[in-house]
Amino acid sequence: MIEPVILKGFRDSLPNEEIPKRKIITILESIFQSYGFVPIDTPVLEYTSVLLGKGGGETDKQVFHFLDNGGREVAMRFDLTVPFARFMASHTSEVALPFKRYHINKVWRGEKPQKGRYREFYQCDFDIVGIDSEMADYEILSMMNSSFASMDIKGYTFHLSHRGLFNTFLEKIGERDNSVEILRAVDKLRKIGEDEVRTLLREITSSEEKAEAILKYITADKGSSSFLMTLDRLTDLIGEECESAKRLKAIYSLLEKTGISGHFTLDPSITRGLDYYTGIVYETFLSGAEEIGSVCSGGRYNNLASLYTKENLPGVGSSIGLDRLIAALEELKSPLLENRKSSDILIIYALDKITEAETFATELRKNGIKTDVYLSPEPKMKRVYDYLDKNSIPYLLSLSDKATLRDQKTRESVEVNTPQEVLEKIKA
Amino acid sequence: MIEPVILKGFRDSLPNEEIPKRKIITILESIFQSYGFVPIDTPVLEYTSVLLGKGGGETDKQVFHFLDNGGREVAMRFDLTVPFARFMASHTSEVALPFKRYHINKVWRGEKPQKGRYREFYQCDFDIVGIDSEMADYEILSMMNSSFASMDIKGYTFHLSHRGLFNTFLEKIGERDNSVEILRAVDKLRKIGEDEVRTLLREITSSEEKAEAILKYITADKGSSSFLMTLDRLTDLIGEECESAKRLKAIYSLLEKTGISGHFTLDPSITRGLDYYTGIVYETFLSGAEEIGSVCSGGRYNNLASLYTKENLPGVGSSIGLDRLIAALEELKSPLLENRKSSDILIIYALDKITEAETFATELRKNGIKTDVYLSPEPKMKRVYDYLDKNSIPYLLSLSDKATLRDQKTRESVEVNTPQEVLEKIKA
Repeated sequence: MIEPVILKGFRDSLPNEEIPKRKIITILESIFQSYGFVPIDTPVLEYTSVLLGKGGGETDKQVFHFLDNGGREVAMRFDLTVPFARFMASHTSEVALPFKRYHINKVWRGEKPQKGRYREFYQCDFDIVGIDSEMADYEILSMMNSSFASMDIKGYTFHLSHRGLFNTFLEKIGERDNSVEILRAVDKLRKIGEDEVRTLLREITSSEEKAEAILKYITADKGSSSFLMTLDRLTDLIGEECESAKRLKAIYSLLEKTGISGHFTLDPSITRGLDYYTGIVYETFLSGAEEIGSVCSGGRYNNLASLYTKENLPGVGSSIGLDRLIAALEELKSPLLENRKSSDILIIYALDKITEAETFATELRKNGIKTDVYLSPEPKMKRVYDYLDKNSIPYLLSLSDKATLRDQKTRESVEVNTPQEVLEKIKA
Repeated sequence: MIEPVILKGFRDSLPNEEIPKRKIITILESIFQSYGFVPIDTPVLEYTSVLLGKGGGETDKQVFHFLDNGGREVAMRFDLTVPFARFMASHTSEVALPFKRYHINKVWRGEKPQKGRYREFYQCDFDIVGIDSEMADYEILSMMNSSFASMDIKGYTFHLSHRGLFNTFLEKIGERDNSVEILRAVDKLRKIGEDEVRTLLREITSSEEKAEAILKYITADKGSSSFLMTLDRLTDLIGEECESAKRLKAIYSLLEKTGISGHFTLDPSITRGLDYYTGIVYETFLSGAEEIGSVCSGGRYNNLASLYTKENLPGVGSSIGLDRLIAALEELKSPLLENRKSSDILIIYALDKITEAETFATELRKNGIKTDVYLSPEPKMKRVYDYLDKNSIPYLLSLSDKATLRDQKTRESVEVNTPQEVLEKIKA
C-alpha cells in the first residue's frame, strides 16, 4: 500500500474550493471577453534558457527545472509574463496589434511554503500590447474596475502612480542613478513604515535633505483631498508639468468622464519592485482586507519581448493573484464563496419509480436546474441527509407513491405532481 | 537575443484555437454540472512513487520526472485517473459517496511526437465512485449522450460491451487464464482486421476452434439488427444468462425508457486494453470521423484506489480526449469551431468622440455584446480592416460627426444614433 501523500507546498482542490474558484474565473473571463480580450495558452514546460533568459542566479532556485529524457534543459513556467513575451515574439505576424489577451492558469515556484503561499498557484494576467496611449492605460484600469464591480465587492481602491513621473523627480534631485535602490526602499513603505524607509533613503542618497524630499514626494497624497490635488503637489515638487503628469491627467479625465474615478487614488508610494515598468503602476486593495496586500497589480512597460525580438512592443497589463483574491474574499465573507452546492436538487426514488426519476431529472436539467439523482433506489435517509449536507444541496425530491419536495432550509415538504411544479417552487 | 522556440511536442494555443477549445470545455462543464457532478483539481507535480505505484518499467520513459531542489523524486501527472485514485484515498471522509466528479486539465507524456500527438494535452474525465449499480452505469452513459448532443454533433455512436461478460465466455471455453493477451489481440481488430486477429488468437489459444469461437463472439453484432439480438447471441454463446448479461439488459432498458437507446450499439469487439476494467466498457465514434478513433472511452472498474487505501471504491467513468475531439470536429466542419471571433463589434472614434466611444462601449457590454474599442483615435482604415479580419469581428462602429454601423459581411453601412439602435441592428 502506498501512502497517498502530496508534496509540501501543493494541495488538492476539493469541490467546495474548486466550485467558487471556477465561478470567479468564469466571472473574470466574461468581463475580459466583454472588452474584446482573447484567451491564449502556452506550454507549461519550456526550454530553461528561454524562460530564464541568459541570467539565472537567484531565480534559479525557485524554478522547477530538469533534464528531460531527450537531454534538454527544461523548466516549468514560473509566471505568465515571460511566456507571453516569448509568445508575442513567436507569433508577431499572426496577431493584429494592439493585441489584447488574457491568460488564467497555474504557475510553479519552489518557494518556501508558508501560510497562504504555495508552490503551485494560479495567475490571471491581462495585457494590451502594441500601443502606448492614455486610452490603453485607461482601458486596463476600466476593465479592472469592471472586474471588481462584477464580483460584488463593496469597497476596493486602485492605488495609481507613475514610474516615469517618479524618475523625473529623482532626476531633478540628482538621484536618477540610484533609482533601482530607491524604488526598492519605497516599495517597503507599507511594510516597514516611514521611519525605517527614511533610514534606508539616507543610506542610499547619503543626504538627509534628499531623503526628506523623497519622503515628501511619496507621501504627497497625505492630506490631499483629491487625485488632481496630489498630482498638482507632485508637479510642484518636480517644478514643471512633464509628459508623465500629462498622461496621468489624461487618464484621470477618462476615468472621470466614465464615472469610475471614485475607485482610483493617486498614491506616489506605489512603485512596484521591478525595473520593467516605465509608465503607470498600480496596486489594488480591498476594504477590510488591506493586510492581505494587493490583489491586482501591474503597470505600463516599454518593451515586452526585447529578450526575444527586435520588434518593439510597448504594453500595459495587470495580474490578479487568484489565491490571494480568494483569501481576501473569504476574509470579507463574500457571498461569492458561499455557494458551494454541487447541485440544486437531489432526487431519490422508490424502485418502481426509476423512469419517473429520469423524466423529472431530464426536464429539470433542461430548465437549468442542476439535478443530482441518488443512484441507489430506496436509500437509507441517514445517508441521504449526509449526502445533502456534504454537497450543500438545498432541495430533496422523493418519488414514491407520491412526489414530495422538501426544502432543506425550512424543513418543509410539499406534494408536487410535475417537473413544472418543482421548477416553480424552487424558483419562488 | 534568445530564439523564441518551444519544445518539440508542445505548442502555443492562439486565440483562434483557444476560443473554440474554451467554448467546448464550457459546454461540457455545464452538462456535467447539470447532472450534479462537481469539479476537482489535483497538483500537476506529485511524488513519482505515488504516481507510478511500485512499478515503473515502460511507463517511466513516458513520464516527465526529476529530482526537485529538495531532493524529492517528483513527476508530472500523465493522466487524471491515478491522481483521482490518490485523491479519493486522501479525502475519503471529506466527500459523500457516491462521489460524482469531473476533472478537465492538462497531462504530460514524453511520447514520440507525431501528427495529432503532443506531449502536453488535455484530458476530460468524469466518474461516479462508491457504487456499483445499473443506475450509475446508465447515468454515465446518459451524461455522455447529453454531452455529444449538446455539441450539435449529428451522428455519434457509443459502442458498448461488457468485460465481465467476455470473461465469463472465456472461462466457458477454458481460456480465462489467457484473457489479458486475448483482450489485447481483440483490441486490435479495428486496426489490423479479422484475419490478423485470427492469427494472433490461434497463437494465444493454440486452438483453431477456440480462435473461431472468440471471433464469433467478438463479431456477434455483425448481421444483428438490434442491441438485444446481439445480447441474445452472446448469451447463447455463453450458454446461460449470467449477471453481466442481466446488467447489460437492465442498462439498455433504462436507455430505452429515456429515449436515447438509438445512440448505443452492443459491440463485443470493444475490450479496452487495460486490466483495470471489470464491467461495461465503451468507445465513442463520430459519423464521418471514425478514422480519428474513439473520442470518449471508459468503463466500470472494481476498485479505483486499491494502491492507496483499503476502502473499496467501485466506479464507472469516462474520458473525453479533447484534442482528438477537436480534430474530429474540424474534420466534420463543426459550426462550434467556426466562431473564433474575439468580439462582436469594434468601435473606432474621432479624437473628440472618446467619451462617446466609452459610453457606447459600456452600454453594449452591459447588454452582453463583446465590444472592442480600437485604442488609437482616427486610425488608418487599412489597419482597422486588418484588425477586424484577423480577429473575425463582424461589426464596425465609427464615431465621428455621425455614428455609422458597418456590417463586415454585407459591407453595408447604416447611421445609428444610440447604443440601443446598435443593439437592435446586431441582434436582428
